[in-house]
Amino acid sequence: MKLKYPDYLSNLVNVLKRLPGVGGKTAERFAFNLLSWPEENLSELENVIAALKTDLHYCENCGALMDNEKKCLICNDPHRDASIVCVVASAKDIFAMEHTGEYHGIYHVLGGLLSPLEGRHAEDMFFQTLLDRLKALETQEVIIALDSTLEGDATALYLKKKIEELDVKVSRLALGMPMGSSLDYLDEGTLGRALVGRAKF
Amino acid sequence: MKLKYPDYLSNLVNVLKRLPGVGGKTAERFAFNLLSWPEENLSELENVIAALKTDLHYCENCGALMDNEKKCLICNDPHRDASIVCVVASAKDIFAMEHTGEYHGIYHVLGGLLSPLEGRHAEDMFFQTLLDRLKALETQEVIIALDSTLEGDATALYLKKKIEELDVKVSRLALGMPMGSSLDYLDEGTLGRALVGRAKF
Repeated sequence: MKLKYPDYLSNLVNVLKRLPGVGGKTAERFAFNLLSWPEENLSELENVIAALKTDLHYCENCGALMDNEKKCLICNDPHRDASIVCVVASAKDIFAMEHTGEYHGIYHVLGGLLSPLEGRHAEDMFFQTLLDRLKALETQEVIIALDSTLEGDATALYLKKKIEELDVKVSRLALGMPMGSSLDYLDEGTLGRALVGRAKF
Repeated sequence: MKLKYPDYLSNLVNVLKRLPGVGGKTAERFAFNLLSWPEENLSELENVIAALKTDLHYCENCGALMDNEKKCLICNDPHRDASIVCVVASAKDIFAMEHTGEYHGIYHVLGGLLSPLEGRHAEDMFFQTLLDRLKALETQEVIIALDSTLEGDATALYLKKKIEELDVKVSRLALGMPMGSSLDYLDEGTLGRALVGRAKF
């Protein structure tokens, strides 16, 4: 008979396994580490988790994460160019775009990508919300900033068709060599797209 | 100016970074994943963490983790051979030893290893508790099951000297090839110890 973990420990391991990329071994490592945390650190962890249930709000306009102040920092910034809308899949992507420091327009969070395999079809997505917003904003350009994957490509193509019907310019993030990459290690798909998308030097 | 995470998110990321092997990127991944957890799962996570503050107890005799019942399953098992004591560094190691199914004695948790560099000297460790316990139990054999590292070796050597003074047999886990390993990939230290420790076939 194997020695079982005490209940509080096996419950902890099971809950931690729900984190992305965390399997049994890592969950056990986290759990045993938590056993040694001082009581105030455990309380702090409880509190930050509890805060998610109360403080977490998404902007009604664009879907961005909002501060407690209940206003979206980007939609409320008068220096933002509201004629350009960047379409991203999740609220997390807004932070990645902002960290580039290169974008000064506003955002729209789709909340997911088309995936017929996982049962997410065009009619289940809130695409109409985006189209209505573009009309209301009299948007000049939409930048599609979606993953370069099957789902991302499918969603981008679908959106391009729908948005062009509104007579709005549609662009997509460039496909090409990642910074610091070496030709030796590039897959042929990436290299091919970098060649097609070559720019005047 | 970079867009900052809302407070509840940056607090969460900072607390999660305290987990072992979790840096900024992983903590962010965990945090954004937690944002999408349903409320009941978040509550469950809070509860299992809160349980650590109330349910966690260590056995007075051996230092093993105990169930809520407040008795150590091993010390209270009459089928265990109390004449053999296995010395481990942490309570976690007991589970690893038990999962082998090969050990039927009792345990003693040291709570750490000697490490002069980190300021853990022999006088700071509870070695006397172990020695007193061995005397009281009239132990026949002590199995040292410590890491095969500098700290583990130093602690093992120190304990060997002290325990042999009590006229108790001391053994240590075998050093050799891990199961499924190939000679090509073994470091020379491991191979050397495997040769020295070779057994009749």
